[in-house]
Amino acid sequence: MHALEKILAKASGRNIVKVGEIVEAEVDLAEVNDLYLQVIRSFYEMGGKNVACPERVAFVFDHYSPPPSIKAADNQRQMREFCKKMGIELLFDIGEGVCHQLLAESGLVGPGKIIIETDSHTTTLGALGAFATGVGATDLAIILLTGRLWFKVPSIVNIRIDGSMQPGTTAKDVILYILGRLKQDAAIYKAIEFTGSTVSSMPMDERFVLCNMSVEMGAKTAYIQPDKVTFDFLKDIGAKGEDFEEFTTDKDFSYAEAYDVDVSGLVPQVALPGSVDDVCCVKDTEGIPISQVLIGTCTGGRLNDIRVAAEILKGKHVAKDVRCLLVPASKKIFREALTKGYVDILTEAGVVFVTPGCGPCLGAHEGVLAPGDVCVSTSSRNFPGRMGSTEASIYIASPATAAASALCGRLTDPRNVM
Amino acid sequence: MHALEKILAKASGRNIVKVGEIVEAEVDLAEVNDLYLQVIRSFYEMGGKNVACPERVAFVFDHYSPPPSIKAADNQRQMREFCKKMGIELLFDIGEGVCHQLLAESGLVGPGKIIIETDSHTTTLGALGAFATGVGATDLAIILLTGRLWFKVPSIVNIRIDGSMQPGTTAKDVILYILGRLKQDAAIYKAIEFTGSTVSSMPMDERFVLCNMSVEMGAKTAYIQPDKVTFDFLKDIGAKGEDFEEFTTDKDFSYAEAYDVDVSGLVPQVALPGSVDDVCCVKDTEGIPISQVLIGTCTGGRLNDIRVAAEILKGKHVAKDVRCLLVPASKKIFREALTKGYVDILTEAGVVFVTPGCGPCLGAHEGVLAPGDVCVSTSSRNFPGRMGSTEASIYIASPATAAASALCGRLTDPRNVM
Repeated sequence: MHALEKILAKASGRNIVKVGEIVEAEVDLAEVNDLYLQVIRSFYEMGGKNVACPERVAFVFDHYSPPPSIKAADNQRQMREFCKKMGIELLFDIGEGVCHQLLAESGLVGPGKIIIETDSHTTTLGALGAFATGVGATDLAIILLTGRLWFKVPSIVNIRIDGSMQPGTTAKDVILYILGRLKQDAAIYKAIEFTGSTVSSMPMDERFVLCNMSVEMGAKTAYIQPDKVTFDFLKDIGAKGEDFEEFTTDKDFSYAEAYDVDVSGLVPQVALPGSVDDVCCVKDTEGIPISQVLIGTCTGGRLNDIRVAAEILKGKHVAKDVRCLLVPASKKIFREALTKGYVDILTEAGVVFVTPGCGPCLGAHEGVLAPGDVCVSTSSRNFPGRMGSTEASIYIASPATAAASALCGRLTDPRNVM
Repeated sequence: MHALEKILAKASGRNIVKVGEIVEAEVDLAEVNDLYLQVIRSFYEMGGKNVACPERVAFVFDHYSPPPSIKAADNQRQMREFCKKMGIELLFDIGEGVCHQLLAESGLVGPGKIIIETDSHTTTLGALGAFATGVGATDLAIILLTGRLWFKVPSIVNIRIDGSMQPGTTAKDVILYILGRLKQDAAIYKAIEFTGSTVSSMPMDERFVLCNMSVEMGAKTAYIQPDKVTFDFLKDIGAKGEDFEEFTTDKDFSYAEAYDVDVSGLVPQVALPGSVDDVCCVKDTEGIPISQVLIGTCTGGRLNDIRVAAEILKGKHVAKDVRCLLVPASKKIFREALTKGYVDILTEAGVVFVTPGCGPCLGAHEGVLAPGDVCVSTSSRNFPGRMGSTEASIYIASPATAAASALCGRLTDPRNVM
């Protein structure tokens, strides 16, 4: 069996599971974000009185952090009250960060766990060896009621990535390249496992990006086999991960599909406005004027991303007609960036920090796009209207490309300014 | 004549002006904020083609900074285009700060100037010896068309403040005390001049607060005679102010009204929810539970305010059920707070920073109040609905009281925790 199958098997009390089968599994951690008040409504509509395992439930206020409207504020108020009533202590209030990053930092996510959140990018946490996926309000309410949820065992796709990364490229360029090649429907209700020498040498910050954007190919979950990088990460945050061997893929396991990707010649990539799988080299878009840059979110707001931006913008200044926003993925990351001097470098360069959370990524607040705006964003989606006006254009790229573009006021290959 | 009368006389080409007279004066600087797209509409409706003196016009994006909606983003877009078309170079885009603070830092405001903004709290800038007041869209559009505006010469009220400030009190406590005593209608279309030994020994950060909140008594403008503190401030930002003697009040001038205020026994003050002139001592409200604290804005977000909050919260933590927001009055102040280590101290203590600007002060975004919320705020207004829900309560207090209350989770006299 595959490690992911072993996770589902153990959590559903079976020895073996097969692709396509429906299993009902214990959920180790369920998280509700502040977009999903409907979870609480559904909980009560289904007759809920007590949450089955309050210690396995978290609430995170990240999409409207801090709230930009009375409605958003009132939703958070109702969630706070629900947590108090139900004995849910894991409440990450405004300003703490994006749910995926907060759970990664919490020490509650690790190899073998089943992690469910009301957010599609929950696949992020497969980078820690978990089975992690996003669900809607009804499914999450079921977990609150029972502690369990049904899953169809997904077939598993292997994406093997080899080759040394070139200067100016990051995991974002790799996953954009893969998206451009395999397209958005490549893995609908499948699991994607990333393997290969490139993945092995990637730090966790980068691995999260690969797994996060797997959902843009329709993946139910993503996965990277835990290794020293994983355990060093878990150790750093004071978490345990020693029982991972139980969740190692059998040597004789055969993948439903397999792809090889060689990144040794990969140059910076960009997804063109409208679709995240319409990908080309940044150098083919160079010179397109831009009005906004967003560095941050759960696919570009980690310490490594902020470091890259700081290196590019140090002692320089964001171009005159460009707003450059930076939204750290968590308060912890913001504080690390503070200590490293990156906040100083970047604010001196004209970058505008917003409160850790999702912010402008989904056009919720803190930098919504106007008609005619052209934005280079390190976020994960660029369909029309994602960040505001349907008449705005969003180019998805790496933090390096975003920072280089902010500096020049137009789409810019970061290798030109490094 | 009074210094303010001399300013109006000179700007309208007269030797003398009298209280109640209408004069038409040259405006030295007119500022439009991002709430006021109507200024541009009115400009065109009145047949405007070119802005009379583009070098004397500024646009500031502070109320929606960064924009929380497509409408706010589109308004800013239209303003950027207007500035470009009209040759207006003074455009302070998102993240720079609150208009009053930015103009104070700009070097363009000083003794003898006439400063007009589309914001009632423009009276702030009287602390630099200017005649500064807020107007609506039509009046501001007239300035764009002609460079001039009419004024009724206001009668002048003297508020003389003497006595040494007690530990734990600041200018905010002083102005709240005055508001409680004189009430909201004390100075409708009058000018308030603050004099006395207490004012003389106040730094500029504090003087701005006195002048800002004068508008809460209906004042057309507020004024503090320039002195060494003023000129040191102007010198620090590289501005000139040497021609102030021309704008000194004559020794034989007699005020329309005069009040004496002794602050030597003054203890921390708070305005109760609903009205900024319903004021009592903080100790009489102690123990009232709170859910949010706002430190910041143009009456509590300057360096001195942030320092006070950092001193109270250093090594401690905001109470569990309280969100504590901090909105610096400008990016310059944020960067100074960064250098001084206050951002580190405060984020470690659980304070959530939002982007410099107006933010939650007017319930625009970045921390809107829900029904039932109880907020201690250093901002300037607390009528029902000011910061969001009309069912929320806002206590207006000093940064020290706000920080102490954040620490304890209930209204707290700062002297208890200093």
